[in-house]
Parts: sequence; structure tokens; C-alpha cells
Amino acid sequence: MCELLGMSANVPTDICFSFTGFLHRGGGTGPHRDGWGIAFYEQGGYRDFRDPHPSLHSPIARLIGEYPIKSRIVISHIRQANVGQICLANTHPFTREMWGQPWCYAHNGQLSNWSALPLTFYRPVGGTDSEHAFCWLMGELRREFPEPPVDCQALWQRLHRLCERLRGLGVFNLLLADGDYLYTYCSTKLAHITRRAPFGRASLSDAELTVNFAEHTTPDDVVSVIATEPLTDNEDWVRMRPGELLVWRDGVIEARLDAAP
Amino acid sequence: MCELLGMSANVPTDICFSFTGFLHRGGGTGPHRDGWGIAFYEQGGYRDFRDPHPSLHSPIARLIGEYPIKSRIVISHIRQANVGQICLANTHPFTREMWGQPWCYAHNGQLSNWSALPLTFYRPVGGTDSEHAFCWLMGELRREFPEPPVDCQALWQRLHRLCERLRGLGVFNLLLADGDYLYTYCSTKLAHITRRAPFGRASLSDAELTVNFAEHTTPDDVVSVIATEPLTDNEDWVRMRPGELLVWRDGVIEARLDAAP
Repeated sequence: MCELLGMSANVPTDICFSFTGFLHRGGGTGPHRDGWGIAFYEQGGYRDFRDPHPSLHSPIARLIGEYPIKSRIVISHIRQANVGQICLANTHPFTREMWGQPWCYAHNGQLSNWSALPLTFYRPVGGTDSEHAFCWLMGELRREFPEPPVDCQALWQRLHRLCERLRGLGVFNLLLADGDYLYTYCSTKLAHITRRAPFGRASLSDAELTVNFAEHTTPDDVVSVIATEPLTDNEDWVRMRPGELLVWRDGVIEARLDAAP
Repeated sequence: MCELLGMSANVPTDICFSFTGFLHRGGGTGPHRDGWGIAFYEQGGYRDFRDPHPSLHSPIARLIGEYPIKSRIVISHIRQANVGQICLANTHPFTREMWGQPWCYAHNGQLSNWSALPLTFYRPVGGTDSEHAFCWLMGELRREFPEPPVDCQALWQRLHRLCERLRGLGVFNLLLADGDYLYTYCSTKLAHITRRAPFGRASLSDAELTVNFAEHTTPDDVVSVIATEPLTDNEDWVRMRPGELLVWRDGVIEARLDAAP
């Protein structure tokens, strides 16, 4: 299984601390040696760094851990290959432009019968179930909303139904972003924590590192981190429920859509 | 004016030497302080590194200059902003997926009346004339070829006509790639050199560095470099003609389309 890491914040924030613990799972404390990637939204722009090599030995990953890129939305992924060979084209996160926005996607899990999902506007570059599902999902959204919807609720409900369909094909834990919102959808496991004043200390589960967030923040900062498994061992992470979609903006949950009963 | 750098090779080749000279133009020997980017095609995949800061002081640029990423097609760009503010969204190269291929684009020059170019499948994320022209160009190709064309000549002729239209709007020097081919189109200035056995020494114009390619190559390697201005001062670069489109594959020119007389 792969590992997911996401961040939503109300001020541009660096993710060096969380990423340091996270990248240890790429060949260190975890078995996820088959590539990694991280995407940042900055000032309306988007960039990602991807490497098909284990994150623990990647000079690019080391740079990202040390070079504080400040962003309000981050999506990161460490891969353990199941469908598709180990190569750059199969390395998450994936991105496509829709409505002039760069959408970014990372998936944890495995799907069956995914190749039957019909493709319209977007086609995969690589050979993974994950990217195929992404292209299908984006194509379905664009087919229903040729222009960016004025009613966000309609978009979120459609997105939730599409995620539920993918959960019906297997395991589908998702991080998705459009630059304004971060969407997190839980199929089997995702956990989150929101940090705000008064900030305390946190210590990583995967590496010997403690940070005092009070030294790096202002009292108005709100920073939420979402990961497959909790990254710290001295904080109370909230586990998402299967079928739950959370819509994050500026570090807080703006909408919650639950699985149909 | 911005600076362009491209490479086409018949074996995965690193561009560290050329990039070292090139990045000196980003705030060193040149005035191009407004961001830079570089894109690599590797094993059917694509990745780019972009930074809205001067390349000479960018830790990411330094990493790229020292970390040999081997690729058969590379596109790089250093920006001197004219249209659009200095930010990540306006930093070249730009990319879009068409037919399951990641297309990459970098532009040198400035266009007038560009905002009237009609957009269909693709929309710009940032606010530059360059990205708008890219989205228009890709949309026009996709409209004419909904599926990847069997006849490459038809695609190249269409691409050439679209480039000629853009040249009619101002200065349009172009690097474009789809993972198989590198396309270079000259409006005012682009120069190229092809290196093959017997390899010799080359010395950079912009930095005190000489390399003996014989030490880094095999006798079968063919590596072509295309740049706004020649990067070395002891080799014979060929200057392209206005209106000329070259189609590169595996380091050699596969097709040449000239401006209509």
C-alpha cells in the first residue's frame, strides 16, 4: 500500500517537518520504495517534484525536506507499486488542467475492473489503475460541468458520488486539489489533525525529530495535515470514516459528505 | 527577452554542462531574473522543475546542475517577464496532456492581440501571452486531430502553419515536445549544434567551464543542443532561419519545414 500526505493551511506554510517523517516511510520505516512525489500550490501556480526512486535516498526529496517551499495546499505520495511498473510516468501525484486550474491527484489503494472506466477529455500517460481512475473522474466532472460551477455543493456531491463508485471497485483513498480546495476521501484509511493556537510540540513517529510549532507560527495560523497513518505519536489524530469526503479550505473543513446509509 | 535551451539525443543524456552555462544567464551574465524552468522526458514519463526566482540563486537550479537526470528530450527556459507578473503560474515550461502524451512548451518573444486567440480544450492557468498561445495551439491541433495522427507529416504541416500565424502576431521562438519529437521553430533567433563522434572539447561562453565530451559519451551517441544564442565559443553553431520549423528525433533533424516564400 502507498502512503498519502496532504496539507491545508490558511497561510503559506512549509511542510518540511511532516515531509521529513513521511519520507522515512519511503525505504526507511516503511516498504514504499517505488517512487514518491510532492505537489505545491503557490500564488495561483502549481509545481510538483516526482522521483521514481526511494524517497529516503533521493537528492530531490532531501532538497524538499530542507528547502521550505511555502504553500496553502500540499499533496504528497510514496508509492509501493502494485499496478504498473516502477517509472516516472507511474509516479504520483498526477495533474491535469480543468477550467484553467491545475488539478492534482494522489491515490492509495488498488482497483479492479478499472480499465473499463470510459475516458473522454483526459487520457493516462502511464499504466496505473490510479491515473486511469483520475482521468475518468476528471472527465466525468468536466462532462457534467463544462464551465466551473457556481454552485460548489453540486460539484462536491458529484465528486462524492464518483468517489463512491471507485470505492466500489476496490480500495480508493484519495487526495485531490484544485488550488482552492483540498478534497480528502476515505475508503479504508486516512487520518487528520488540525493545529492552531496555542501551538504545542509534536514528535514524529518515523524519525527522531520534535518540533515546537509555537516557534514557527503566528497565533492566527491554522494548519491541517492529512495522512494515511498518523505521523506524530503525541497528538490526537482523527480517523476518517469509510465513504467520507472532506472538503478543506484554509486549514478547516468546509464541507463533509458521508457515505449513503 | 527570455532564453530557450533544448536538447534531443539518441541515448538518455544529462544536460548538466549546457544547463550550467544557461543558468548563468538567469541573473549572472544575462538579465533574465524572473524565473526559470526545465523539463525532462524519461522512460515515457515527464517531469519539470520550475522556480519563479533567479536561476543563479535557486537551490533547485543548483541541484539540477549537479544531479545528472538522463533524458532524450529536454526543454528549459529562463524568463525575463514582459506580459504577466513574476510568479509560479507564469513560469515556463508549460505542459498539457494530449492523446495520453505530456506536451511541453516554452516560448521566447512577445505577441500582440494574443488574447483574441480562441481557446477550446485547454485554458491558461497564469496570465502570459505565452501560455495563452500554447493553449490555443494545442486546442487547434486537437480540434484537427482528435486522435493521434497516423500521418506525422500532416501534423507537422499543421503545426508549422499555426506557428506561422503566431509569428504574425510578434516574436515567436518556440521549443515544443511530445516525448517522441522535439519541435523548434524560429521567429528571430535560435541556434543549434549536433555533437557526435569524434567528440571534442567545448567551453562555455557564460561560465569558466570546459568539458571533454569524449570522456562522457560512447561513439554512437548523437546529441543536439538548441538555444536562443550559442552556449559555447569554440564550436560552429547553425542559426535557424525565420519561419523555419525543425522536427528533431534521437538527436537528428527528421524534418525541416520552411517559411512560405
